[in-house]
Amino acid sequence: MTERANVLSANRAFYRAFAARDMEGMSSLWAEDAPVACVHPGWDAIRDRAAIIRSWRNILGNPSSPPVLCKNETAHVLGEVAYVLCHEVIEGSYLIATNLFVRERGRWKLAHHHAGPLAQAPETSEPPPRLQ
Amino acid sequence: MTERANVLSANRAFYRAFAARDMEGMSSLWAEDAPVACVHPGWDAIRDRAAIIRSWRNILGNPSSPPVLCKNETAHVLGEVAYVLCHEVIEGSYLIATNLFVRERGRWKLAHHHAGPLAQAPETSEPPPRLQ
Repeated sequence: MTERANVLSANRAFYRAFAARDMEGMSSLWAEDAPVACVHPGWDAIRDRAAIIRSWRNILGNPSSPPVLCKNETAHVLGEVAYVLCHEVIEGSYLIATNLFVRERGRWKLAHHHAGPLAQAPETSEPPPRLQ
Repeated sequence: MTERANVLSANRAFYRAFAARDMEGMSSLWAEDAPVACVHPGWDAIRDRAAIIRSWRNILGNPSSPPVLCKNETAHVLGEVAYVLCHEVIEGSYLIATNLFVRERGRWKLAHHHAGPLAQAPETSEPPPRLQ
């Protein structure tokens, strides 16, 4: 598997944990050594690992949180760091996310997540998929 | 100067070029070798260097584009890659930006810029400054 494929696999694991409300999976995906940060849509940045995990616990633990789908992901590897750009589809609305990964002990871990709204659905994508 | 200071210096150069509508400076800041991408607020990602430079030419060349101010920046170095989180103040509104830098021939160059709106002014910051 190429490094790009490994990064995309880590990105898919992130959205699987997000969609399945799997806090253990979500927590294990975040880097332990690298400086981490997280920008939820419209929020200010969270720069502390424990606070990031708490924020995800709140989101995933909220029964009214809508499901998420990841689409159109592209990975760009820069040595020991990589970033993924992808669309998030939440209740038919599109967001765009930057997910920054860093290699720790041979595994790609999330160092930074930044998601924000798109003004309109991306031109290149198919119609919004049916949400699960 | 520490690498973190060098990264912050490159980030300041980016906002100086942005505020001064300096296209030559803006163009020289973007990485030449690394895969680049740019997410303007609300827009879909641009993934091609020439298209990114064109988008900045449109923004900086538009006389109605409002001035920008960078505040509260923090830099995080991950070896040959670094990311900066900062607030952008545009007409009194706050945005949050992720700026990803990569070292090319000894200089920190912009590989990816992602800016999006904040729902409210960040708690930690002073009142919005007077715009130049």
